[in-house]
Amino acid sequence: MKKGVMRPGHVQIRVLDLEEARKHYVDLLGLIEMDSDDQGRVYLKAWTEVDKYSVILRESDEPGMDFMGFKCLNEAVLDSLAEEIRALGISVTELPSGDLKDCGRRMQFVAPTGHTFELFATKEQTGKWGISSVNPEAWPRGLKGMQANRFDHCLLYGDDLEGNLTLFRDVLGFDLAEQVVDPEQNRVALFLTASMKAHDIAFIKHAEKNKFHHASFYLETWQDVLKAADLISMTDTSIDIGPTRHGLTHGQTIYFFDPSGNRNEVFAGGDYHYPDHETVTWKAEDLGKAIFYHDRQLNERFLTALT
Amino acid sequence: MKKGVMRPGHVQIRVLDLEEARKHYVDLLGLIEMDSDDQGRVYLKAWTEVDKYSVILRESDEPGMDFMGFKCLNEAVLDSLAEEIRALGISVTELPSGDLKDCGRRMQFVAPTGHTFELFATKEQTGKWGISSVNPEAWPRGLKGMQANRFDHCLLYGDDLEGNLTLFRDVLGFDLAEQVVDPEQNRVALFLTASMKAHDIAFIKHAEKNKFHHASFYLETWQDVLKAADLISMTDTSIDIGPTRHGLTHGQTIYFFDPSGNRNEVFAGGDYHYPDHETVTWKAEDLGKAIFYHDRQLNERFLTALT
Amino acid sequence: MKKGVMRPGHVQIRVLDLEEARKHYVDLLGLIEMDSDDQGRVYLKAWTEVDKYSVILRESDEPGMDFMGFKCLNEAVLDSLAEEIRALGISVTELPSGDLKDCGRRMQFVAPTGHTFELFATKEQTGKWGISSVNPEAWPRGLKGMQANRFDHCLLYGDDLEGNLTLFRDVLGFDLAEQVVDPEQNRVALFLTASMKAHDIAFIKHAEKNKFHHASFYLETWQDVLKAADLISMTDTSIDIGPTRHGLTHGQTIYFFDPSGNRNEVFAGGDYHYPDHETVTWKAEDLGKAIFYHDRQLNERFLTALT
Amino acid sequence: MKKGVMRPGHVQIRVLDLEEARKHYVDLLGLIEMDSDDQGRVYLKAWTEVDKYSVILRESDEPGMDFMGFKCLNEAVLDSLAEEIRALGISVTELPSGDLKDCGRRMQFVAPTGHTFELFATKEQTGKWGISSVNPEAWPRGLKGMQANRFDHCLLYGDDLEGNLTLFRDVLGFDLAEQVVDPEQNRVALFLTASMKAHDIAFIKHAEKNKFHHASFYLETWQDVLKAADLISMTDTSIDIGPTRHGLTHGQTIYFFDPSGNRNEVFAGGDYHYPDHETVTWKAEDLGKAIFYHDRQLNERFLTALT
Repeated sequence: MKKGVMRPGHVQIRVLDLEEARKHYVDLLGLIEMDSDDQGRVYLKAWTEVDKYSVILRESDEPGMDFMGFKCLNEAVLDSLAEEIRALGISVTELPSGDLKDCGRRMQFVAPTGHTFELFATKEQTGKWGISSVNPEAWPRGLKGMQANRFDHCLLYGDDLEGNLTLFRDVLGFDLAEQVVDPEQNRVALFLTASMKAHDIAFIKHAEKNKFHHASFYLETWQDVLKAADLISMTDTSIDIGPTRHGLTHGQTIYFFDPSGNRNEVFAGGDYHYPDHETVTWKAEDLGKAIFYHDRQLNERFLTALT
Repeated sequence: MKKGVMRPGHVQIRVLDLEEARKHYVDLLGLIEMDSDDQGRVYLKAWTEVDKYSVILRESDEPGMDFMGFKCLNEAVLDSLAEEIRALGISVTELPSGDLKDCGRRMQFVAPTGHTFELFATKEQTGKWGISSVNPEAWPRGLKGMQANRFDHCLLYGDDLEGNLTLFRDVLGFDLAEQVVDPEQNRVALFLTASMKAHDIAFIKHAEKNKFHHASFYLETWQDVLKAADLISMTDTSIDIGPTRHGLTHGQTIYFFDPSGNRNEVFAGGDYHYPDHETVTWKAEDLGKAIFYHDRQLNERFLTALT
Repeated sequence: MKKGVMRPGHVQIRVLDLEEARKHYVDLLGLIEMDSDDQGRVYLKAWTEVDKYSVILRESDEPGMDFMGFKCLNEAVLDSLAEEIRALGISVTELPSGDLKDCGRRMQFVAPTGHTFELFATKEQTGKWGISSVNPEAWPRGLKGMQANRFDHCLLYGDDLEGNLTLFRDVLGFDLAEQVVDPEQNRVALFLTASMKAHDIAFIKHAEKNKFHHASFYLETWQDVLKAADLISMTDTSIDIGPTRHGLTHGQTIYFFDPSGNRNEVFAGGDYHYPDHETVTWKAEDLGKAIFYHDRQLNERFLTALT
Repeated sequence: MKKGVMRPGHVQIRVLDLEEARKHYVDLLGLIEMDSDDQGRVYLKAWTEVDKYSVILRESDEPGMDFMGFKCLNEAVLDSLAEEIRALGISVTELPSGDLKDCGRRMQFVAPTGHTFELFATKEQTGKWGISSVNPEAWPRGLKGMQANRFDHCLLYGDDLEGNLTLFRDVLGFDLAEQVVDPEQNRVALFLTASMKAHDIAFIKHAEKNKFHHASFYLETWQDVLKAADLISMTDTSIDIGPTRHGLTHGQTIYFFDPSGNRNEVFAGGDYHYPDHETVTWKAEDLGKAIFYHDRQLNERFLTALT
């Protein structure tokens, strides 16, 4: 949080069929439906989040991610960071308050990898779902499915990783917590964090711009990862891989797909990061182990099933 | 235990290199080396077992299982069951006390699927390893690796499943806890138990006789399954699949290989069985989900990598 | 199961207010209400049980246990065991089929400690709740509260432990899995099992006859024990102790009370037993550690709050 | 980290017998002994910490905490924060580099509650113990006892909580994540964080200044909390309470004592915090549930056993 960026605040995901998607994200992942808008977008949150929503579903002809937003400490941070981003030669668009329901103005820009990001500082706070802020119980009753705790991060594929590193590390104040480096010392993956989490956003090198690998949601325990995998099976949901562990961040994970083909991750555990931590380096020649720690090889979908 | 057969008592496994195998079963699985004999065989136990050993390693030119032995309530059971087995037209050889170190006489026979089994009732009891029988602590300190709790069962491949069912259910008093049945109502898998465990021995239909799929060891928790998978990765051990869950028995599992190519399983959880439980049936057309509950498809090794 | 007794089949518990009790056992413990009878008794089951019910609630002026029943392999076992019990000088009453709903005839008798037990062999089987017997999923959706897996055992207090040992071990074929022995070598606690479980019934020495300490329900994991403790707190249920571990059996446990003052236990884990296992002995002078392994001292309720 | 304070960096604990203390912190908690100095102090670290040490043991006639240090982003932060602390009327002493081994200069001061704190920015970094910074494995082999992950926070008792709140929140940039408030709206407990952790330092209202309640160490899972409790029992270590959950922060915890009578905590889980989170409030009249979520009452030691 060196420059005032706190955390991933929301992600807008394109889905082919809104009803199917709602069922997936609410009944299976356990997100809570909070609102919808006159564009037909549906707003969801995970139960530990204090803001009103973190996932926005938009019906579209193709799946993928519209944009990901980071919440900043205050409105002043937005202006100063927008200025710094523009100084990098990247244009920034200010979207007015209310463009996303109950959200303040957003500074939106396209990163060198082609992905759209935005910064915002104000959103209606409804508090943790089902939990009082006075004498709060340990967890709310009535959660569904995987009982996802929070929207945690996205993993994106794109070409200009060095451009993104400059943007996220030097301008937005993220740390490079982990990286994958090829034998020529080129970075082929970046895991960036604005907090103690092992990653708030990650990028993997890819020939094309603006590809979406997955949106990730946090679970409390490895036991919850097992139950999530069971639910994937019980609901005949398309699984990618897992339960397993990542080498990078050491999180315990499952990858699976929403009905539109967007990949989701649920995970538990994982390393923590402070700004004085040396960047953890994985060798590209060991990418299999870096990604899937137990199998130690990539499955073919890992590099191809991008939306 | 309707006919006096209590549990899997031991398995003799052929290994190509005894030193490598010892390292694998002791340092990785966490078995305890208890003894060796003048044939060079090594005797191992898991810590919760009260008998002196449950795994015997024998150096050989090819991997596989020599035999699996079941412990019976008493010596009288051996004679009566030997007689019943012979009445089935199967010859039974009595091996003298001491042929296996510190083990009483054993009644050995070849099942219709070509596998060698034996019954015994007497083996030196050394008690749980590292635990007193007075005021016993919850677990011993100093366990290695995966800290396997007990040798649990074997899964074997062979042709004459109906012959084995008659032998194990009708003569030896096992229950058919679970089965896989094809559309023509032929059984293609048998999961048999002499106790409350979901299986003490299992068979899968295969064109050839006497194939060995795996020997399985019990772990206490799903957390231990994760740590076992981590250790497989840290030690560069060949993994087959997992962590995942089986549909059959619902156990939480990993398959991996010893240095000789023998498949091992470690698992936790799983259903329990009583004699009045209806046999659980899985459809052969859903064998993928029956075996690997999360992936819902067999990996190619499942049917081919047999020793 | 040496003499054909399989497992605890049911317990009839007296409650002061049936509606409060139903709420407790259904909403908090997660038992499923299956039926009621014209005496107003309510029949409940835990989800993994194949029989129609295992807990019967009867409204009464005082709490406690009416009787506990064990399910036997078949009807013939009932007659032979009844004869053996009578030979011990204990009178046995045969209750007709239907006296408990959908249950066959029961052989009822009073043990030397003053507790009423019964044997039965027939009860309607409705199968595991919410799970098919073909291609069964790992667990059913829609379970409530603690999601108790099964009625597991009772702990009872009474005077004539040696009389009960003769009855349960020598006549009914149970094993003495664990015991507590005082410095004069008198047994002050018996943990008896008819199966692989660490205990199907347990007795602690007490001046008075026929006291009820608790009825116990099995949970799958230590994680479930935590969630059970959380639910106890969220619902303002009276807790006795836990989460903690027992020394005896090493199960992971919580004790709490139903609205009538009957103590319940939920627990996970614990040791397994085979007939050739030496009886585990705890010293009476270390009873604190034997009962509450972490605190290593009894709380005052342990010896006094009996119904 | 609004003002550049990153995390708890170390705590110096007074022990009556250094050898006994070393055995406790190394063999039981699983800290790693890294160094000692010519004053006889012993330097220890937990395995996930990148700095050389986090716990310093000093032999003394009475137990307790000498001081707790926070690591800051850089040396410049030290000077600016020292100036701000002095502006509050609190004197700050600069201790030279090397006064603690391999640690840079430290700015030391006494908080309004009478406790000694210090800020530092430089300490030798030895990296995570037993783990490479290239292709790091998930965890190191060879850890002892409870395998504590990191020194996490201290809970201290003292009189002037409002003074400490001004110091930590307004000057040092901590957030007040949680508080306990009495019916007159006086704060009687402060849980303060400089990061995403639920607390980096906590204070409870007490008539006397400068009392030490406990130093806390993080474990990975609730399963590890169970094993820690088992080890406490196996080693006849004095336990205070647990395993249980706190209401405040919802962490899963055990309290126990080192041989000198200093209270330790090991815990897992717990809530996360961001600067835009509303302070969580517990009512003083529900302090029992706030501290011990399951028992919902304080044990008598909680308020009395202070060093």
